[in-house]
Amino acid sequence: MAKEGDVNHGDYVHDIENEASVDGNEEIGRYWSGLSERNTSHSKPLLVKRINTTSQIAIVGANLCPIESLDYEIFDNEIFKQEWRSRKKVDIIQYVILKWGFALLIGLGTGLVGFFNSFAVENIAGFKLLTTTSLMSQKRYAEAFLVYASLNTCLAAAAAALCAFIAPAAAGSGIPEVKAYLNGVDAHTILAPRTLFVKIFGSILGVSAGFVVGKEGPMVHTGACIASLLGQGGSRKYHLTCSWLRYFKNDRDRRDMITCGAAAGVAAAFRAPVGGVLFALEEAASWWRSALLWRTFFTTAVVGIVLRVAIEFCSTGKCGLFGAGGLILYDVNSANVTYGILDILAVVILGSFAGVLGSMYNYLVDKVVRTYSLINEKGAAFKISLVITVAFFTSCCYYFLPWVAKCIPCPSNVTVSCPSTAESGEYQSFQCPPGYYNDLASLFLNTNDDAIRNLFSPRITKEFHISSLFIYFFTIYCLGIITYGIAIPSGLFIPVILAGAGYGRLLGRIFEPFTKLDRGLFALLGAASFLGGTMRMTVSICVILLELTNDLLLLPLVMLVLLISKTVADNFNRGVYDQILKIKGLPYLEAHAEPYMKNLVTRDVVSGPLISFSGIEKVGTIWHALNSTGHNGFPVIDEPPFSDAPELCGLVLRSHLLVLLKEKTFSNERRLADQDIFERISALDFGKAGSGKGIKVEDIDIQEEEMDMYVDLHPITNASPFTVVETMSLAKAAIIFRQHGLRHMCVVPKSQGRPPVVGILTRHDFMPEHVLGLYPNIDPHKWR
Amino acid sequence: MAKEGDVNHGDYVHDIENEASVDGNEEIGRYWSGLSERNTSHSKPLLVKRINTTSQIAIVGANLCPIESLDYEIFDNEIFKQEWRSRKKVDIIQYVILKWGFALLIGLGTGLVGFFNSFAVENIAGFKLLTTTSLMSQKRYAEAFLVYASLNTCLAAAAAALCAFIAPAAAGSGIPEVKAYLNGVDAHTILAPRTLFVKIFGSILGVSAGFVVGKEGPMVHTGACIASLLGQGGSRKYHLTCSWLRYFKNDRDRRDMITCGAAAGVAAAFRAPVGGVLFALEEAASWWRSALLWRTFFTTAVVGIVLRVAIEFCSTGKCGLFGAGGLILYDVNSANVTYGILDILAVVILGSFAGVLGSMYNYLVDKVVRTYSLINEKGAAFKISLVITVAFFTSCCYYFLPWVAKCIPCPSNVTVSCPSTAESGEYQSFQCPPGYYNDLASLFLNTNDDAIRNLFSPRITKEFHISSLFIYFFTIYCLGIITYGIAIPSGLFIPVILAGAGYGRLLGRIFEPFTKLDRGLFALLGAASFLGGTMRMTVSICVILLELTNDLLLLPLVMLVLLISKTVADNFNRGVYDQILKIKGLPYLEAHAEPYMKNLVTRDVVSGPLISFSGIEKVGTIWHALNSTGHNGFPVIDEPPFSDAPELCGLVLRSHLLVLLKEKTFSNERRLADQDIFERISALDFGKAGSGKGIKVEDIDIQEEEMDMYVDLHPITNASPFTVVETMSLAKAAIIFRQHGLRHMCVVPKSQGRPPVVGILTRHDFMPEHVLGLYPNIDPHKWR
Repeated sequence: MAKEGDVNHGDYVHDIENEASVDGNEEIGRYWSGLSERNTSHSKPLLVKRINTTSQIAIVGANLCPIESLDYEIFDNEIFKQEWRSRKKVDIIQYVILKWGFALLIGLGTGLVGFFNSFAVENIAGFKLLTTTSLMSQKRYAEAFLVYASLNTCLAAAAAALCAFIAPAAAGSGIPEVKAYLNGVDAHTILAPRTLFVKIFGSILGVSAGFVVGKEGPMVHTGACIASLLGQGGSRKYHLTCSWLRYFKNDRDRRDMITCGAAAGVAAAFRAPVGGVLFALEEAASWWRSALLWRTFFTTAVVGIVLRVAIEFCSTGKCGLFGAGGLILYDVNSANVTYGILDILAVVILGSFAGVLGSMYNYLVDKVVRTYSLINEKGAAFKISLVITVAFFTSCCYYFLPWVAKCIPCPSNVTVSCPSTAESGEYQSFQCPPGYYNDLASLFLNTNDDAIRNLFSPRITKEFHISSLFIYFFTIYCLGIITYGIAIPSGLFIPVILAGAGYGRLLGRIFEPFTKLDRGLFALLGAASFLGGTMRMTVSICVILLELTNDLLLLPLVMLVLLISKTVADNFNRGVYDQILKIKGLPYLEAHAEPYMKNLVTRDVVSGPLISFSGIEKVGTIWHALNSTGHNGFPVIDEPPFSDAPELCGLVLRSHLLVLLKEKTFSNERRLADQDIFERISALDFGKAGSGKGIKVEDIDIQEEEMDMYVDLHPITNASPFTVVETMSLAKAAIIFRQHGLRHMCVVPKSQGRPPVVGILTRHDFMPEHVLGLYPNIDPHKWR
Repeated sequence: MAKEGDVNHGDYVHDIENEASVDGNEEIGRYWSGLSERNTSHSKPLLVKRINTTSQIAIVGANLCPIESLDYEIFDNEIFKQEWRSRKKVDIIQYVILKWGFALLIGLGTGLVGFFNSFAVENIAGFKLLTTTSLMSQKRYAEAFLVYASLNTCLAAAAAALCAFIAPAAAGSGIPEVKAYLNGVDAHTILAPRTLFVKIFGSILGVSAGFVVGKEGPMVHTGACIASLLGQGGSRKYHLTCSWLRYFKNDRDRRDMITCGAAAGVAAAFRAPVGGVLFALEEAASWWRSALLWRTFFTTAVVGIVLRVAIEFCSTGKCGLFGAGGLILYDVNSANVTYGILDILAVVILGSFAGVLGSMYNYLVDKVVRTYSLINEKGAAFKISLVITVAFFTSCCYYFLPWVAKCIPCPSNVTVSCPSTAESGEYQSFQCPPGYYNDLASLFLNTNDDAIRNLFSPRITKEFHISSLFIYFFTIYCLGIITYGIAIPSGLFIPVILAGAGYGRLLGRIFEPFTKLDRGLFALLGAASFLGGTMRMTVSICVILLELTNDLLLLPLVMLVLLISKTVADNFNRGVYDQILKIKGLPYLEAHAEPYMKNLVTRDVVSGPLISFSGIEKVGTIWHALNSTGHNGFPVIDEPPFSDAPELCGLVLRSHLLVLLKEKTFSNERRLADQDIFERISALDFGKAGSGKGIKVEDIDIQEEEMDMYVDLHPITNASPFTVVETMSLAKAAIIFRQHGLRHMCVVPKSQGRPPVVGILTRHDFMPEHVLGLYPNIDPHKWR
């Protein structure tokens, strides 16, 4: 009577089979007869329809992207227990060494990639910008534009080609996918080696091409990919595996490693070890253990050390155009951070508007991504054309807009040369005469990192016109929106920080008569408020900004704007990552159940006929069930003579059944397996394969005569499945389901005379789309 | 067949009643007959015996300290649902305002107390030290000792008297108790107003008296007390309550506030907002929601602001002897933090020895506390005498030990006067001639904070002899051990940091030929390693030290020593707070189940006859059950004619039954209650009262004729109790129990023909002592 909601390997459409199940179904059928009109209404789950209509394919990649649920539950069967009992001290030591070794490797790998990324971007973009500005200084304006635009377009086309042909899944930020994985949703290609490759190089090319995109999201995805590769433990195909790795052949340990990887990514992107840990805790992870805190911190500290060593090495000038400049963006020491009521008021206004603008950003990104996905669906050529169009448009904006800015005389009190000659270009001369600089060109004709540093610089060293700031803010805001969703790896942090810093500095100029706060500080607060308004993260943003600025003095103001902008924005829509998760149709389980679920009980949502097995089952029955359904878990019921009455024995997984069938541990009689079963099959055989790589039912060859033999399922049955009574509130069941990382949850009857299991709940049964599809007259907004 | 493990209000001994329960017991009896020999062995829970023998009374206080389980589960009954459905927008706004308002108030309160504490200590101890040193400088040595020792003894006696007579629960660190509360164990007096009062003033007096104790633990406890007072919402007795507070009349919201309070305490003690949040997350809290992260951070930021404002205010010299010195202990700018292999090796050795010394510290503290508790049990006079003895002994050590130190010539390159004249006493002259200082006196005759600052000071400004450092380290190590456990508020952070800093600086001197690391840095690393070796916290210590030193450069070394010392120490025993929890007999649920629990199932540990009620029950039956047992939760079973077969309706709480009985919503017939029941009783009546203040069964007066009337329990029955099947692995059940903050868990049968509930599990059933008592032949060390 319950349906199995997991989508099967490689099988995109969610199939519910309609055959009679093995036992006791009439009885359940009778019980459920009163609800039959419901049953017809929800034989087709809404969620799958939803996935198709909103076409995640276009965004995740041109390949169909099968979604699989992960099983983070500790599986409690005889085979595993046997293995666990026989574990020796040396095994535990191996495990601990591996665990920490992997954490170290993730940190090293992500740190090196982070350094390589910055190094490559600064050199490529620096070369591009230096060429352009040197042509400009020779007044060869048309040539300068041609060089600039064509370099940008080529870099963009290369990034798009990588994405389109090698790993479509590498497009976009990657944070939503990592979030989904950590929530228990695996889309196979998301953490594949080729995705890692494209993510690294695509991100470098994309950022160098001058797009309004960041490297932060891609870095998080890169960290997760590195962790995933380590966790899957090389490859059996290439004999690159090691027996120690058997401990990581489960979803839980991989999840923990990917959490470390995500934290390492943030740490590498912002050089913020504590911020990385808090990002993983606040935004990325759905499950958290206090042991993980320490391991994650260890990983991010390794990243910090790697970056520090690399920068130390480069400070001697061996890294080309890669600067020695740390990421300490806002130089607090030169600014006065004391404030009064009027200053606070200005900050409150800044935060409120940022909330509105931030939620509008999310709204527009959503619309643009949906539109782009229609184009991207049509094929690789369309994808690349779209990228080139956006690249060319961006180049035009960047090159032509500075012409409207007025020239500003160089300040006398600075140590760097003005107009700039180096690639960092703090004071771009552009079309201005000697001794003058173009403020808008200093922002546009620069790398994103340098633009942020310029905007954050205190008042005494840098001046921007209000009109320039307005043009800059408006352009970046719009470009950021139309850039996300094209087929390149594109982080969202930098666009938001850029727009926010421009907005903050603009408001700083406007509020000048009322407040004494420095404009650079306003830019920082603007960036914080925009981050709060779009991403809706709080503590991690605070700590990242704290680590970037290295001063606790700013904390109160940063917290204030974050609090305000997040609160304002939450009234309009959800965080941008949550929106993207929704567009992609990934079945993400929220930490909190929807309020209307309090009024439903678990039996209200289970659907479809239940397929269950006997403790000792005919091979043919299993074979048939595996072939005809996509279910991933089956309840096992013990029946007389093996028990007094039918009783719940446990739950068996499809992947484990496949291993058992492959090993052919059959017998001719209906009897319990001998002890020697544990010698024939071991827990190692049941280790979870890399994503999308397990045994398939097609791989197994069963003879006709074997179909009538019996197989004892007890050794592989999880004897402690999570169960709920059918009258349990759906909200509570959802919380149990999420908190324990379950894939299946058995529903047991509340009274006598019914089969011991009346249904199975899976992730899809808790999705608001599914529940509201079953009960269309529930108003989700009414039940606050 | 199940026992109810909660200890009842005010009732210290855990009583299990032996009466026949209501229904279906014969059947369960038959089922359980095979296990009867087990049943006899565990009719008396071990845990209670354990509490008595280890006499928590002596430590927590002279009063009997009843322990109560808290219920963090969302209680899902009709009355609450009714209230929730009728909630309006304005109610939600009220709730949000209150939530953030309380967070603000907790931050303000804790920040002010933190400031007041430092202010008072610096003034009292400063006065004491100035008087002593001025007598010393006049060579009136005997007088100086008399003044010093008598002042110390008086202050100590005052602190002890406060503790002994007003709030015995205020003795000790307080962190274990807060940890236990957040785990779901409430000892009533722990968060009472008088405990708060004594904690604040006792801590000031104790620290001023020159004990080797800190203010950190007491600050955490103070923060938690402030939060608890706010959460309980004033007092009905004094009409200081407000209708808005009804939302906080449950254990969950109070728990969240107390988490904020604990974080605020750490933030106030160390001026480390992020460290406070991570402390709450890593060490204090057992449950964590990501929403809490932001609220906690807000609270600690408020603390940070309050402290900053106060220090700004005091920097003008209005606060007497309270210095302007920030807590930035180790001045990194003056030290060179580059290191090679030999330096790393030195740090590894430092960490390893610190691990051994730290675990020895824990072992000795455990022994001393157990010994002291025997003395403290005898009465207030004994308590105070013990405190005075320790105070006098400490004074003797502090005064006489510096005599063995050699005089050191004053350095020429310092800005402060040498020998010191101010109270901070960086260079105490003691018995030395002018132009010389006594290094040991500079450590001993100082406040703890100044001693730490001296030890952390870089090499160029301060010199300590190896012999002085050895004497200092040894003395502080021993004094720290013999001081914890006396009846004053005594934090453990400062003793450990002091001993660790002395140890680190000593090793820095010893390793001098091999390493170029600064001795001040060694002292810092020594403190970190000692903290790791005793407290076994990791990330929070790292971040606290990071915030104290304000430099990320130190992070790798600090992490390394922490990792080493914690790993070494974990081989010997557990963290000091866990040990104290154990000594106090608080039934703390660990995050991980014990390994041997994997081999047990839930039905193996349920015990005692089960008392359950019908959905519509006789008043007399309820009355009798409440009077004759201490159970706090009763399953409710629906029976014909209200259902086809006996089925589980839910769980009802003692406190809710008492309200229902008090309201006398009885009827003469056995029928369902009318709708007007919701007008007669409201959810407000069922709000959880302050700890230990609910209605008692003695308060209710039932007439003889009412005994035969019926009462409908459905409106107050939690229709979604957490259930597990009887064959669920005990380890998994323990994890569900802990993760959802449960107080009761119903055990349902796995097969037909048995009553719908076969037992109830409570906190005590998951205690290792209980389980190992039932199965004495399980070797807890074997099942690794």
